[in-house]
Amino acid sequence: MKAIVYHGPADFRFEQAPDPVLRGGADAIVRVTRCAICGSDLHLWHGFPAQGQGFAVGHEFVGVVEEVGPGVRTVKRGDRVLAACTTGCGACDSCRAGLYSGCRVTTAGGAQNVFGFSEALPGGQAEAARVPFADVNLFRIPEAIDDERAVFLTDILPTAFMGVKMAEVAPGDVVVVFGCGPVGSLAQRCAELAGAARVIAVDLDEGRLARARARGYETVQGSGDELLARVQALTQGRGADAVIEAVGRAELVQRAADLLRPGGRVAAIGVIATPVELPYFGFFLRNLTLRTGLVNPQRFIPALASLIAAGRLDPSEIVTHRLPLSDGVRGYQIFEAHREDVLKVVLQP
Amino acid sequence: MKAIVYHGPADFRFEQAPDPVLRGGADAIVRVTRCAICGSDLHLWHGFPAQGQGFAVGHEFVGVVEEVGPGVRTVKRGDRVLAACTTGCGACDSCRAGLYSGCRVTTAGGAQNVFGFSEALPGGQAEAARVPFADVNLFRIPEAIDDERAVFLTDILPTAFMGVKMAEVAPGDVVVVFGCGPVGSLAQRCAELAGAARVIAVDLDEGRLARARARGYETVQGSGDELLARVQALTQGRGADAVIEAVGRAELVQRAADLLRPGGRVAAIGVIATPVELPYFGFFLRNLTLRTGLVNPQRFIPALASLIAAGRLDPSEIVTHRLPLSDGVRGYQIFEAHREDVLKVVLQP
Amino acid sequence: MKAIVYHGPADFRFEQAPDPVLRGGADAIVRVTRCAICGSDLHLWHGFPAQGQGFAVGHEFVGVVEEVGPGVRTVKRGDRVLAACTTGCGACDSCRAGLYSGCRVTTAGGAQNVFGFSEALPGGQAEAARVPFADVNLFRIPEAIDDERAVFLTDILPTAFMGVKMAEVAPGDVVVVFGCGPVGSLAQRCAELAGAARVIAVDLDEGRLARARARGYETVQGSGDELLARVQALTQGRGADAVIEAVGRAELVQRAADLLRPGGRVAAIGVIATPVELPYFGFFLRNLTLRTGLVNPQRFIPALASLIAAGRLDPSEIVTHRLPLSDGVRGYQIFEAHREDVLKVVLQP
Amino acid sequence: MKAIVYHGPADFRFEQAPDPVLRGGADAIVRVTRCAICGSDLHLWHGFPAQGQGFAVGHEFVGVVEEVGPGVRTVKRGDRVLAACTTGCGACDSCRAGLYSGCRVTTAGGAQNVFGFSEALPGGQAEAARVPFADVNLFRIPEAIDDERAVFLTDILPTAFMGVKMAEVAPGDVVVVFGCGPVGSLAQRCAELAGAARVIAVDLDEGRLARARARGYETVQGSGDELLARVQALTQGRGADAVIEAVGRAELVQRAADLLRPGGRVAAIGVIATPVELPYFGFFLRNLTLRTGLVNPQRFIPALASLIAAGRLDPSEIVTHRLPLSDGVRGYQIFEAHREDVLKVVLQP
Repeated sequence: MKAIVYHGPADFRFEQAPDPVLRGGADAIVRVTRCAICGSDLHLWHGFPAQGQGFAVGHEFVGVVEEVGPGVRTVKRGDRVLAACTTGCGACDSCRAGLYSGCRVTTAGGAQNVFGFSEALPGGQAEAARVPFADVNLFRIPEAIDDERAVFLTDILPTAFMGVKMAEVAPGDVVVVFGCGPVGSLAQRCAELAGAARVIAVDLDEGRLARARARGYETVQGSGDELLARVQALTQGRGADAVIEAVGRAELVQRAADLLRPGGRVAAIGVIATPVELPYFGFFLRNLTLRTGLVNPQRFIPALASLIAAGRLDPSEIVTHRLPLSDGVRGYQIFEAHREDVLKVVLQP
Repeated sequence: MKAIVYHGPADFRFEQAPDPVLRGGADAIVRVTRCAICGSDLHLWHGFPAQGQGFAVGHEFVGVVEEVGPGVRTVKRGDRVLAACTTGCGACDSCRAGLYSGCRVTTAGGAQNVFGFSEALPGGQAEAARVPFADVNLFRIPEAIDDERAVFLTDILPTAFMGVKMAEVAPGDVVVVFGCGPVGSLAQRCAELAGAARVIAVDLDEGRLARARARGYETVQGSGDELLARVQALTQGRGADAVIEAVGRAELVQRAADLLRPGGRVAAIGVIATPVELPYFGFFLRNLTLRTGLVNPQRFIPALASLIAAGRLDPSEIVTHRLPLSDGVRGYQIFEAHREDVLKVVLQP
Repeated sequence: MKAIVYHGPADFRFEQAPDPVLRGGADAIVRVTRCAICGSDLHLWHGFPAQGQGFAVGHEFVGVVEEVGPGVRTVKRGDRVLAACTTGCGACDSCRAGLYSGCRVTTAGGAQNVFGFSEALPGGQAEAARVPFADVNLFRIPEAIDDERAVFLTDILPTAFMGVKMAEVAPGDVVVVFGCGPVGSLAQRCAELAGAARVIAVDLDEGRLARARARGYETVQGSGDELLARVQALTQGRGADAVIEAVGRAELVQRAADLLRPGGRVAAIGVIATPVELPYFGFFLRNLTLRTGLVNPQRFIPALASLIAAGRLDPSEIVTHRLPLSDGVRGYQIFEAHREDVLKVVLQP
Repeated sequence: MKAIVYHGPADFRFEQAPDPVLRGGADAIVRVTRCAICGSDLHLWHGFPAQGQGFAVGHEFVGVVEEVGPGVRTVKRGDRVLAACTTGCGACDSCRAGLYSGCRVTTAGGAQNVFGFSEALPGGQAEAARVPFADVNLFRIPEAIDDERAVFLTDILPTAFMGVKMAEVAPGDVVVVFGCGPVGSLAQRCAELAGAARVIAVDLDEGRLARARARGYETVQGSGDELLARVQALTQGRGADAVIEAVGRAELVQRAADLLRPGGRVAAIGVIATPVELPYFGFFLRNLTLRTGLVNPQRFIPALASLIAAGRLDPSEIVTHRLPLSDGVRGYQIFEAHREDVLKVVLQP
């Protein structure tokens, strides 16, 4: 099959790769019909350490089941399915608690359990992919949801929604979202959907802020003390109820405390590889909560699929580029340039 | 002053009544600028036992502070305020837990702590009213909210929202709301606002159902087995996540179990004076939760005021009649006739 | 193999029964080493409708894995295991939400998914039993827990604990437990363990009450108005925070409202086959919550196993009779007589 | 009156101070009968900035009401009362949400709202003290609780319990508590009370660890990698469910992530004045939650008082020194020396 294959940082190639095969009785092979490039894929592009090389990248993909192992019960050949990006076994204590990302089995020995970061679990920017523990990690796609929208259920939309859950957004809340990129944009939508009275979108890029305004949100351009002053003014000095960090910058997590009312919550869903120097005393005086974590799409897919199927949520509103898979490397270059008119790049094998 | 005064069932009169006066240091007197007729007022009209007679009725009112006792700190003469319909002392164990309706002080000796049901606590369908424990039970109205919308914050909107909270409505849920009257209509809106993927509005009256469809909801006309079959069909046999009973009929609470998926919740916010013969085994087999209760507006006013001020929620969409207070008795007659084109009657002193 | 076999109400026989065999790739065969008689078994004895006949009864059993299907990953031949009494598939929406008792697969077509109530799923008062979906329904027993204590993890202890969870027992609460039988006794212990300041055990049988006092609880003998007066006196008129019904009598659920403070919770874990005439207005005025449901041991086994292994909880304190499996029918007769000195009957194959 | 008066770091003097007087209608004057020295008092001793000087220190005190303002309803002259150390107004948005420590009124303009840190709110290591908003901040002491035990309800016990709540300790959990000083010791007890299967007490001081063992807990002496290895070994590599930091050292908060299972929680209740360099990626990969905050005794006093009154919790078990108030400065010196045989110093005026 053809796939976008990892050869090293900034060296991804569209080329022939080995066809995926069943390795265990609980596996399934999925013929990919649509996939997408995620911000986390860019981390690999920028040098995040891979486990091995020569494997297909990408962890956001949907398709059609081609083959299942004898232990698979819930999907069968021909089913239209989406794969949760973080794979769990479904039976360990972490999985039973809904924390598939911390699965004891799929992360044993330090293994990567997200698709597309290792030889052991090649990704889905490919014509086909193997999905382990298919009963746990594959979900049938409801008829009312097309492939493009379904791709969003594999990672980015659950990530955004998890941010809203981690920030305990409740009806009436004022929610500040750092970042108007793909994840931030969807986090804004999810915050609205969870009942936020006001969503304040923060970014430095005026183009992205204009898009956020077009989607119906208040916006603040700025950082540091200026940002603080603006949020305080917007909330009459009260502070926000929740901050969602969707950029992945340590200084934004540090800033969050200042923006929050007593009892506020910070959910950090951007990936930050450095330590974060937390202004602890501010957290203490305001009784704040900080949560972060890898997404567990399995927990959120049913609810989010319901919302898409009912027409209450349309994640495809942020798709700005649609390319054939064969053009995927160009997709990376487009996404990596981080221009204001690029939000989500979707690929079609 | 003039007021709508209770003389017995179906015998309310617009007439002179004693001016309210401060009785305790924590009291305030409010000059009423807008009030409304609630379904619970009809219970009194229909014979619900009053404590005494000759008192002003009505528990939904807003106005301007005229006078405060020496212990009042949070409002002052001239403030535009709304009164929570259920009065608490703010300091007993119930109030500290947010259950003002179960206040140990205001309900001591079996006293009625809702405005307008007793001589001891006359209501607000009047030119003025006394509000006990003003720091607890009065809320300043934000500038962005006009009087008519503010009236909804005193009871009916918190009641609807409490139903949504008691039913634990979460993003993605399928929510069945029994009743498309005033409370039901707002419960539908609140369920949507809390992220429900689908709101299924149930009523017998086609006119009310048409209004619900116009507000954006799915509707089912019917009851009994037919209703069950329709909901099962609409949910592909899965059942709803939550049912909100906003009519006040025992048989609807009994029906709820059949409509729910395992783990579902029933919130009963309609007033039901009779016992409810619960189909217990159905509740048991499906692991259901049933919650009911008097509203505690104090808990919900800040969030709901935020939503109205931000323009995300407009309860005045259900106002069908606006009358001068002097016409209030006619307002009761209109409301009582329960015609399909009557939802909410607002009165202006 | 030998088993206690269902032939009809009050007609259980210790006799030869077919050896269990694997029916699906996810099944396991367990050689039973210890089992117990549960109050629900008595329902069958007393006429609760069975699905078929000639099957082994009993749903509380532990043992050693003899054989597993090719799809089983988490247990292997020779493992010491316990079986959750309510079987789930682990992959449907109910199971993913932790509601294995409402599993869409194991209850399809109205099937019984508790062991020992049907030909399709024979029970574990037998020398061996088949366990479907073994990865979901079998748990390895920690070394620190012996077979007798492990039997309690299959149903009765999770049931008691679920009652405490459903009643939202929190540190400092006053908890009334109706019933000092096996489930009630363990619910008392679990309420204590969850931090209840006071556990008030209610029963009619003085012998059982004496045992409850010996385990450290306050007791009230009585029912009706007398019971109400006693609980009100014990709580200085405040009422209890939570009531757990562990007898299975409709009138006790009806009574619960009177005993509770505003905002209180009723958890009904006894099996009640009749409708319950709920004193609805009392529930309404006090803002109460009523929860009931079949146990889902899978959710609670890890926590409860931790507590037993750490020596903080010893369910075997309520074992009053230990018999060989061959004497099991006598065990039923002893248990059924409901004498005050009988709490839990454990059987050994 | 006589009091322990602040003159600067390490310069506290037992001397004459002005008698407290009512300043507002909601105030009360309390004649102090018992008070205690808290770790936070030591911060002042060690140079934490005070607001002014010449004021009585101390925020843990109980006594008898001497005088109340005209707006006070819930306590009267002669009542035995305890004061919550963090004062709230009871009516602002923070107080209504239970976050008295973040009260908009008592902290307005940067004011200190904890007793004994400012001229504006003198403390209770004195013969008498003024308590603002007495209906909010004073609690009548149940007869069953003596003065010494009641002192614990003013701060330290609610702090410990809040740590357990913030760490979401649930029955069956493995809880690591950093610190076997006064707060840590009570946090261990509260974790046990909330159902922890295992409490692992960590300290460097063998004497304190021996006391923890005597109270029934597992102990680990050590820090850094050695500590990590020990906790991993004790939990068979699984990690703890919750960590409570009760020492007040940044490096322990940093360490917490390594000790936790996926989905674990860190509650930091020690006061840390420096930034904390959070190992963010570890928090991310394990989906952790970090909570910190000032105590809000008002939320927890009723439950904790119930537990003490019922004999389930005896905080006085950690009292090691009882001195007359006149010896209070020596009490500080004893406490400050931080010897292993000093846990809690109680003073009697």
